[in-house]
Amino acid sequence: MRLRNVKGANEKIESSPYVVLNYLDYKGKYHSLFSNNHPIHIEIGMGKGSFIIENAKKYPDINFIGIEKFDSVVVRAIEKLDGLDYPNLKIIRADATTIEEIFSKEIDTIYLNFSDPWPKNRHTNRRLSSTHFLKKYDSIFEGRKKIIMKTDNRHLFEFSLVELVEYGYHIENLCLDIYQENFKDNIPTEYEIRFHNLGFPIYRVEVMKEVEKK
Amino acid sequence: MRLRNVKGANEKIESSPYVVLNYLDYKGKYHSLFSNNHPIHIEIGMGKGSFIIENAKKYPDINFIGIEKFDSVVVRAIEKLDGLDYPNLKIIRADATTIEEIFSKEIDTIYLNFSDPWPKNRHTNRRLSSTHFLKKYDSIFEGRKKIIMKTDNRHLFEFSLVELVEYGYHIENLCLDIYQENFKDNIPTEYEIRFHNLGFPIYRVEVMKEVEKK
Repeated sequence: MRLRNVKGANEKIESSPYVVLNYLDYKGKYHSLFSNNHPIHIEIGMGKGSFIIENAKKYPDINFIGIEKFDSVVVRAIEKLDGLDYPNLKIIRADATTIEEIFSKEIDTIYLNFSDPWPKNRHTNRRLSSTHFLKKYDSIFEGRKKIIMKTDNRHLFEFSLVELVEYGYHIENLCLDIYQENFKDNIPTEYEIRFHNLGFPIYRVEVMKEVEKK
Repeated sequence: MRLRNVKGANEKIESSPYVVLNYLDYKGKYHSLFSNNHPIHIEIGMGKGSFIIENAKKYPDINFIGIEKFDSVVVRAIEKLDGLDYPNLKIIRADATTIEEIFSKEIDTIYLNFSDPWPKNRHTNRRLSSTHFLKKYDSIFEGRKKIIMKTDNRHLFEFSLVELVEYGYHIENLCLDIYQENFKDNIPTEYEIRFHNLGFPIYRVEVMKEVEKK
């Protein structure tokens, strides 16, 4: 899947200062990569990067890492970043299934934006909000766990709410149609704008799980 | 509020075999009122009664009690029942705020259909899915607690999900648009049909809380 129709993608990606090529070397050391102790927020499946880039621009005191497995979209994000200097932004090319091998006790917040709904029952474990993934996330959080999810997919959202709550997450904020709500400080993804314009409600939930007492 | 524009409402209501006038005498004894041990389902705020009447017709092995405070709509339900004999249906004229004075450890399921959203923050406790009401319901359930809610009001639904989950209810079934879903065995209320036809999504959730271990 490396070069899907994008000429020279690999070269562009590998020469970008935003991309962490040797990312496995940084497991447990991402604060040192950013040379500060600011909270680290990650977006799993950043796509073309609009969301994470806008966040990096808007919140310089938060470090952002976008994770994406497809080079064909990573290269689009890198093109957007051409000539821009955001020291609080990094990109990792990796598959979400390996997330617990990438980070260790250093993440503050996970964003799941318009994740693949994997509609078939036998693919439940591939959904990024399934218990299967929630278990993986446990080891990457630094303290209390926070996940912020947006989707236009009703079934995925229904499924996710149930999974998150059953796993012990508390609902901090729930919005069943952010554009009806004029949701404060929303940063849209490319996909989101397209599906909102088609008239679909955009669902959003923010959940948190406190540090467990020992 | 007794006779709001409906002539002879009080007489019609008081002469109906469906209406339990001396309902306070039956607290803790509703199974004996129905002369059987079938589960008892109640709808708080039954309005004109379509939902509860259709349920009584469809599920003869469940006892149904509709609760409604406004005579002006109770009388409409009674008119619908004219000439029909549903031994598994009763109606109580009462305000939901007194619910824990009406029942004691005898209810199986509570239906909250299109309840008043009470949008103002200072009226939070008036919402039938608020913690304030969830506490009242605790004493009326016979065993495990079950609540099934439908609404077209997004804010009320968002609020209710959070309240129910925080109170320890588990989400058994969640549907963010029952008409998109072709929801199985749905029995609509009068209000529901109207708002669905206007294009609003109809939200539904079914929650349960197991019997607490002592």
